[in-house]
Amino acid sequence: MTTSGRKVSLTGIKPTGEPHIGNYIGAIKPALELAEQYEAMYFIADYHALTTVRDPELLRHYSRSVAATWLAAGLDPERITMYLQSDVPETFELTWILSCVTAKGMMNRAHAYKAARDRNAESGKEDLDAGVNMGTYNYPVLMAADILLMDSDVVPVGKDQSQHVEYAADIAGSFNHLFGGGKPVLKIPALVVPEADTGKTLPGTDGRKMSKSYDNTIPLFLESAKLKKLVRRIPTDSTPVEDPKDPDSSSVFQILEQFATPDVTTDVRKRLEAGGVGWGELKNTLFEVLDEKLGPLRARYDELMLPGSELTDLLAAGADKARVRAREVLGRVREATGIQ
Amino acid sequence: MTTSGRKVSLTGIKPTGEPHIGNYIGAIKPALELAEQYEAMYFIADYHALTTVRDPELLRHYSRSVAATWLAAGLDPERITMYLQSDVPETFELTWILSCVTAKGMMNRAHAYKAARDRNAESGKEDLDAGVNMGTYNYPVLMAADILLMDSDVVPVGKDQSQHVEYAADIAGSFNHLFGGGKPVLKIPALVVPEADTGKTLPGTDGRKMSKSYDNTIPLFLESAKLKKLVRRIPTDSTPVEDPKDPDSSSVFQILEQFATPDVTTDVRKRLEAGGVGWGELKNTLFEVLDEKLGPLRARYDELMLPGSELTDLLAAGADKARVRAREVLGRVREATGIQ
Repeated sequence: MTTSGRKVSLTGIKPTGEPHIGNYIGAIKPALELAEQYEAMYFIADYHALTTVRDPELLRHYSRSVAATWLAAGLDPERITMYLQSDVPETFELTWILSCVTAKGMMNRAHAYKAARDRNAESGKEDLDAGVNMGTYNYPVLMAADILLMDSDVVPVGKDQSQHVEYAADIAGSFNHLFGGGKPVLKIPALVVPEADTGKTLPGTDGRKMSKSYDNTIPLFLESAKLKKLVRRIPTDSTPVEDPKDPDSSSVFQILEQFATPDVTTDVRKRLEAGGVGWGELKNTLFEVLDEKLGPLRARYDELMLPGSELTDLLAAGADKARVRAREVLGRVREATGIQ
Repeated sequence: MTTSGRKVSLTGIKPTGEPHIGNYIGAIKPALELAEQYEAMYFIADYHALTTVRDPELLRHYSRSVAATWLAAGLDPERITMYLQSDVPETFELTWILSCVTAKGMMNRAHAYKAARDRNAESGKEDLDAGVNMGTYNYPVLMAADILLMDSDVVPVGKDQSQHVEYAADIAGSFNHLFGGGKPVLKIPALVVPEADTGKTLPGTDGRKMSKSYDNTIPLFLESAKLKKLVRRIPTDSTPVEDPKDPDSSSVFQILEQFATPDVTTDVRKRLEAGGVGWGELKNTLFEVLDEKLGPLRARYDELMLPGSELTDLLAAGADKARVRAREVLGRVREATGIQ
C-alpha cells in the first residue's frame, strides 16, 4: 500500500525484441489497465535480458524502445512509475541477500532451468547444464528481488509466469522466518491473473498464433505503407466476394475486433455474414482501423526515440521514485540481517 | 595499477568469529606486509558471512570486530584502503553481470559446494543439495566481483583459496571475450601466495593445530589474567626441570618463536637445550612476550570498539576510496554490455 491507500502492482517488461500488435493486445493493453485499480509500477528488465543478449547496441536499443513503446501505448508517467531495472542498484544487493535464504533445490525446479536441461537431454548431451549460465539459473532470485524490493502487493502475470511470483512469496517467507523475529520484514506478494488476460492471442500473417518465433508478426509501430503490405499478406480462403462468410474463422476479423470500436465490429460482422464483402475489402478496413488507432502511438513512439527526447528524463524520474521505495525496503532488510 | 604506479593487492576478510593468535601469525601478519609492496586493499566480507550467519547482532559485532582487529594489528588507514563489502553496492550489480557470463558447470565444481554435496552423500541424504543455499552456491561469483571490481592485480591467498582467484580470472576472461570486442574490459587478476605464507600454523592449548573448530584457541585480544591462564594450559611433557629439552617439539616454544625477538628466541632455545629451564618458566616467558606484544594492540582494539569511536569514519572513508575504483570499473562494464 502507498500513502494513496492503493495497492502496489508491479509489472516487469523484458526488452528482447520489437513489440508487435499481439504483444499490444495480450500484454500491453491489460497491463495499462492496472493503473485504474493499482498504484502501478512498471520496470524494464534490462538485466534479465543480459542472460541472453550479447550485443550491447541491441540491448541499449531494446531497452529504450520498449520503454518508449509502453509510454506511447498509453502509460501516463504522471500516474504510474516506470523505471529501468539497472537504474535501481538496490535490486542486486537484495538479490544477494535473498540468495542466502533460498534453497538451491528450489532453483533446480525452476521452469526455465528445467526446460534448458530437458533440451540438453533431448539433444543427447551428457552434461545437462551445458550452455546454462548462472544468470539463467539465478533468474528467479533476481525476479524475487525485483518484486520484494517494491513492497509489491500484487504481481499481475499470465499463468506461465506464476512460478516466479510463488517463488518470490516463498523466499520472502523464508527471510521473514529467519530474520524477521516474527515480524514481516518483507511483504508477501500475491499473484493476480489480470482480468483482461483471457489467454487472448492474435493470429499472425501466416494464420498461426502471432509470435516472434514464427516470424509472422505485425510490428506495432510499422509505417503505414509496410503495415498495409503485411495486412494484405494475412491468409484468407477462396470464398467468393458475394458469399456469406464466418467472421470468427477469419484471421483478419479476429485482429479487427481487437482494435475496432464495438460499432464497427458489429457492422463488419453483419456484412460478412450477409455476403457481398470480399477479403480484400475486409483487409482494407483492418488496415484503416489499425493505422488510425496506431498512427498517433507510432508518432509518439518516434518522438520518444529521437536522441535527446524526454525519454531519458522520464526514466530517470521513474527511477528516483522507485529508489525511494527500494531504499526503504533494503534498509529494513539490512537492519534485520545485521549488515551495518 | 594506480597513479602511484604500484600494483593493487586485494585481501578479503570474512567476519565469522573472534580472531586468535593463530590467525594473527597465519593470516593477519602476512597480509599486513602486503602494504610494503602493493597498493593494498582489504575488505570485510560481511555479505559472504551472510551465507551462514543468522544472528544480526553477531554479524554486526563480527564485522566491526574484525575491522578493529586488523587496524589494531597494524593496518595504517592512511596507507591502505579498508572497507566493508556492504558499503560498496557496485559489488552486487557486478555479481549479476558476471553471473550472466559464468557457466553453471563451473560452479558445480567449486570446492565449497562439492564439499557440501560430499557431506550430504556421506550422511546418506538422497538430495545432495539438501541444506545448500544459493548464497553458498553463488559464492565464487561474488568473490570474482569483489576481485574484479577493484581492478586487482594480485590476490594473495593461501593455496586452499586459490580456486577463487582462478575462477575470477576465468570469469573475467569470459566477459572480455563476450563483451570486450578484443579489449580487456576487466583486468585478469593473478594469484600470489604471500611470501610469509609457509603454511605456518600454531599449536593450540591442547597441542593440536590451533583452530576454532577444535576450541583450543588463544584469542588475540584476551585480557592479561585470562591470557596467563590459557598459556598455562598448553600441554607439556614431564621432563624434569634440570633435563635438556628439545625446543622444536614444544608447543610453548613454537608459539614463543613467532612472537619473541630473534635475540630472545635464541637465548631461550640455548637455555632449554642446556637444561635447567622448566616448562613453567618457559610458559611465564611466553605469557610475558605475548602480553608485551599484544597489550598495545589490545588497547587500540578496545578503543576502536567503543561506541562512537573513529572506526565508523575510518570504514566510511575506506568505502569512499574503494567506490571511486568500483564506479570506474562498473561504468566500463555497463558500457560494454549495453546497459544504459
